[in-house]
Amino acid sequence: MEIIRIPRIMKETSKRLLVKGRTIGFVPTMGALHEGHIFLVKTARSDNDVVVASIFVNPTQFGPNEDFGIYPRDIEGDMQKLEAAGADILFLPDAPSIYPEGFKTFVEVSGISERLCGAYRPGHFRGVATVVSKLINLTLPTRAYFGQKDYQQAQIIRTMVRDLNMGIDCVICSTIREGDGLAMSSRNRYLSPAERKAATSIYRTLKAAEGMVRDGLPLISIKENMQSALRAEPLITEIQYAGIYDPESLEEKTETGRAGLLAIAVMLGSTRLIDNILVEL
Amino acid sequence: MEIIRIPRIMKETSKRLLVKGRTIGFVPTMGALHEGHIFLVKTARSDNDVVVASIFVNPTQFGPNEDFGIYPRDIEGDMQKLEAAGADILFLPDAPSIYPEGFKTFVEVSGISERLCGAYRPGHFRGVATVVSKLINLTLPTRAYFGQKDYQQAQIIRTMVRDLNMGIDCVICSTIREGDGLAMSSRNRYLSPAERKAATSIYRTLKAAEGMVRDGLPLISIKENMQSALRAEPLITEIQYAGIYDPESLEEKTETGRAGLLAIAVMLGSTRLIDNILVEL
Repeated sequence: MEIIRIPRIMKETSKRLLVKGRTIGFVPTMGALHEGHIFLVKTARSDNDVVVASIFVNPTQFGPNEDFGIYPRDIEGDMQKLEAAGADILFLPDAPSIYPEGFKTFVEVSGISERLCGAYRPGHFRGVATVVSKLINLTLPTRAYFGQKDYQQAQIIRTMVRDLNMGIDCVICSTIREGDGLAMSSRNRYLSPAERKAATSIYRTLKAAEGMVRDGLPLISIKENMQSALRAEPLITEIQYAGIYDPESLEEKTETGRAGLLAIAVMLGSTRLIDNILVEL
Repeated sequence: MEIIRIPRIMKETSKRLLVKGRTIGFVPTMGALHEGHIFLVKTARSDNDVVVASIFVNPTQFGPNEDFGIYPRDIEGDMQKLEAAGADILFLPDAPSIYPEGFKTFVEVSGISERLCGAYRPGHFRGVATVVSKLINLTLPTRAYFGQKDYQQAQIIRTMVRDLNMGIDCVICSTIREGDGLAMSSRNRYLSPAERKAATSIYRTLKAAEGMVRDGLPLISIKENMQSALRAEPLITEIQYAGIYDPESLEEKTETGRAGLLAIAVMLGSTRLIDNILVEL
């Protein structure tokens, strides 16, 4: 696996590959890789001639009171995992090369960035859209891979790619889960053993809601059930949202009709966890 | 000259040219072409294998009370001029293909977009940056060409291209002027004969200020001279700005040091005109 740290060299390398007619699969990450990331890399491996993964803990997508400083970093472990999963190139830039002095351009996807996680993390998706547009312009992928666990992020990036005519395919891969259903996340490392156990209530609540959807319960009752199931878990210190949303607009759904996104964001102490599943309504 | 109206076909055409190793020079315009535009096309012609010009009157860069509806359109005349200047491809999209329903992504260059023209045209440069990023992603240029008359626009696009790693060269070409010094502009067509005559005071004021810079007058006196020269012209109904600015930050300059931008924006009745020159301080 080749390691490229300089944005200009990353871009030149990708250009050279494109001129040779190679397809490039790109997996952007913030490192601290888990099996969810590795599934993205393996999917990219099977779809493309060349696989580029990036590791960049992006400062502009963290709020001032968030976990940028303590976000888990494990470059050695990550490199071994990427190599084993078949990545050809690791793009590993430092912050000053991505945001040099005088940086002042931002990409914003209005409307859907303000809902759900956006309401609790102001500026977060502006940071995400900006860095992903930069990473796409540097790695020039044919396809880019994102996990469904970060559904809103994937939806925002898909919209940006379409609106700005970036001309790449966004591939959304299934959420990978622990044996007990907890969605894989780099932030699971923050959990105490008791919190880790309590965190299983998130997916359990989603699956129970899915059952209620199948049984034809009214959406308002399903939402109330989700909220009270989460409230019953004493280690959940805040329910940021839990309900049924439109998978396109991310607005709360009050009537059935086609697809729905069951989504949850909670705080377990100082750890923020999210999860979602798509259902037919 | 080939005419392409569909964004997808424009992008496929550009991709095919790039894979063949061709360089692409791109000249984005809003049509109603004058000799300033033609100079951009001829410069692109001499620098590149393929020259793409676009004509698109971009709705998102006009304010609600601005001249979007009456902006001059002359597609037949424009096509003849582009062909004669050596353009290979005219990209001529319609508004719904550039802004389809559900469009919601915007590119914003903070800091420099709010100054000078931006203070009088809120949202204008957000519309410019957004459409130019789209046009760049569709035409995939090696180099893009802009006129110095729209100095702030060129500066914003240069910043966006650098910040988002678009990897193209922005070439800023000299302002082309009428015999009496008035900067060429599609909006000059709006002027009555009396206003047309009065408009010459803009460049005259810039040249007089340039002389004062050479003579070493204090910047504050030069600015006062510019303002009073423009006030002396009764058909100028508003001076939006007239002074000396930093060519990078566009902040007003109060002390000498390296380069300065002498810049003016005025209203002549309902017509807004701008002009500028760069000077050594």
